[in-house]
Amino acid sequence: MWIKGGINLKLIINKTHLLQGLQNVQKAIATKTNLPVLSGILLETMENGKIKLAATDLEIGIECLIEGEIVEKGSIVLPAKYLVDLVRKLNESIIEINVDKKNNTANIHCGYFNMSIHGYSSDDFPLIPWINNGFNCILDQMLLKSMINQTVFAVSHDESRAFLTGVCFSLQDKLRLIATDGHRMALRESEMTHYQDEKGIGAIIPAKAVNELTRILTDEGEVELLLGDNQVSFQLNNVRLITRLIDGQFPSYQQVIPQDYKTRVRIKRYELIEALERASLIVRGESNIIKLIVQKDKMTIASNTPEIGKSSEEVICSLDGEEMQIAFNFKYLLDVLKVIETEEITIDFTGSLSPGVVRPWEEENYVYVIMPVRSN
Amino acid sequence: MWIKGGINLKLIINKTHLLQGLQNVQKAIATKTNLPVLSGILLETMENGKIKLAATDLEIGIECLIEGEIVEKGSIVLPAKYLVDLVRKLNESIIEINVDKKNNTANIHCGYFNMSIHGYSSDDFPLIPWINNGFNCILDQMLLKSMINQTVFAVSHDESRAFLTGVCFSLQDKLRLIATDGHRMALRESEMTHYQDEKGIGAIIPAKAVNELTRILTDEGEVELLLGDNQVSFQLNNVRLITRLIDGQFPSYQQVIPQDYKTRVRIKRYELIEALERASLIVRGESNIIKLIVQKDKMTIASNTPEIGKSSEEVICSLDGEEMQIAFNFKYLLDVLKVIETEEITIDFTGSLSPGVVRPWEEENYVYVIMPVRSN
Repeated sequence: MWIKGGINLKLIINKTHLLQGLQNVQKAIATKTNLPVLSGILLETMENGKIKLAATDLEIGIECLIEGEIVEKGSIVLPAKYLVDLVRKLNESIIEINVDKKNNTANIHCGYFNMSIHGYSSDDFPLIPWINNGFNCILDQMLLKSMINQTVFAVSHDESRAFLTGVCFSLQDKLRLIATDGHRMALRESEMTHYQDEKGIGAIIPAKAVNELTRILTDEGEVELLLGDNQVSFQLNNVRLITRLIDGQFPSYQQVIPQDYKTRVRIKRYELIEALERASLIVRGESNIIKLIVQKDKMTIASNTPEIGKSSEEVICSLDGEEMQIAFNFKYLLDVLKVIETEEITIDFTGSLSPGVVRPWEEENYVYVIMPVRSN
Repeated sequence: MWIKGGINLKLIINKTHLLQGLQNVQKAIATKTNLPVLSGILLETMENGKIKLAATDLEIGIECLIEGEIVEKGSIVLPAKYLVDLVRKLNESIIEINVDKKNNTANIHCGYFNMSIHGYSSDDFPLIPWINNGFNCILDQMLLKSMINQTVFAVSHDESRAFLTGVCFSLQDKLRLIATDGHRMALRESEMTHYQDEKGIGAIIPAKAVNELTRILTDEGEVELLLGDNQVSFQLNNVRLITRLIDGQFPSYQQVIPQDYKTRVRIKRYELIEALERASLIVRGESNIIKLIVQKDKMTIASNTPEIGKSSEEVICSLDGEEMQIAFNFKYLLDVLKVIETEEITIDFTGSLSPGVVRPWEEENYVYVIMPVRSN
């Protein structure tokens, strides 16, 4: 099975390290591409003795450095589709990779198993750029994960308004993540440490990159955000993700948030989720509209699709201000309830045709504005 | 919320009982139908004080009797789509159902939750038939589940050969379940207790019905099989499933099983599964062909797709007879390895172009015949 002569790259890697590295970078692989090399993962030995894995779809690039024994230096690009599944299915812990540079073929040897697989020359693999000058800040990984989780779901999927298809990262006195699709807006803010510059700066990061980032972020340690002119990178542990930015002017979030309220409801988050899920059964895929009727000590969640039926349920709440009623797309309300982490929430209203404002109870760092719909 | 006057059916049911009953019968609901009433579940009070739930797509019918308080007798058909999800999402344990027969509307009340939902008159619901005369036998539920699991995967999905799209139940000295798609055949047999008739009888039961049956079968207790002229029913606990039979002559299974072998391999089942999964990575969706090379003390599993690469792996085995090699569609081999329950298996061969025979080691009740493919 061993290729005679012309061996270039030769590696001996622990399965766990290799699999973790492959899983980190494979998220950047191009799923639809005319360039076959982009469906591959680059393996390359580094001067510092580490092994670099990298993948890119030309919008997002992810690199990961892993440990392993470098018997001979070199590089190759191997098809991700087979490589990742294969490594996942290997039983033994020690994997040998021997590359014949002449025909870009790798031999993968593990226990009694041998595979030779055709790859691509690393010369054809695009260079994943570095940001040389930019604003940077250091963030807690778990915090950033939570901030993304509380905002990214609100982006628009309408490509004709590209500037709404990403999450706005605004770096000023605080770091703010903002996302909106025109029907609702989510804003999460946090203090920053090690912030480099006093004057503010902002960037719109594609939702896809932000989602991939959350899958790489772990529950401990820090991540460095580095913001360049057209790109942003996130560096954590041995992984670096870089993505292009979206051009455009993000809407001003301050103007969207009502400054006052006529009605404030304080309610148990999970009770409202369950009542909404029951009420939504008969409007889902129909009007999607549920009605909230706010009275002293209770909020009634009502739904109605004449051909199917109607429902109503009372949930206990405490009321500050006027009784009122309002209608929403239930999805926009459920979305936010599922990402808030406190047991209770508040919803502020100024009228049936004005936006509602959802906040976690006794937390200042998150606000969600939701437009009502007309209902009969 | 309560409907005044005309109340007909009125039930008070424990959520767990109702949900379990709904989940049992909902599998028979017609997914594509021009008859809206078939997308519903029948609720009907019985003379014996039980509540009957029933659903049918006119091929399969499932009925389930549940406990509950009958305040007023009656019946209604309610749309399964909303009813099952709703009951699943209710928190309280006591559910009240009040039906207004005049407009076929049910009020469902549970805790602070009320829903009124439009249904259909039970007069429009098709009668699910009973088999009055037939052959019957009693089987252990867990055994029948295992027998189905080891055969049903081998049915054909080619509707032009309808008689191969079901599992043949052959009742003679033993109960035999047989399924084949022309490329492989699975046969599982077991002793029967309480078998009524000495002369044999057989029937082809649609794969869909057999699959639904396994979801209803539990791990304890018995099931009564009752075979009529055009239908078969399975009665267990409080559930009855009835299905039409498939017309046609099932192929004779005896002729398919080779009576002798030139090569017998005994091998660890799980080691072979893992080796096949690795080998299949590069042929899956391509040729699907893997080659088995049998030598003394080892079997080599090899695969090759010239554009992608090739693999080989040795698995330890014990050989009785001649060395040989043969090629299979890996799926047909993996399928059977996953449903055999013993740690080791045997595979018998009589030549590269003759069928292989897979059996669990030291068990007589299962045999799987698999046709080879030509390979270069």
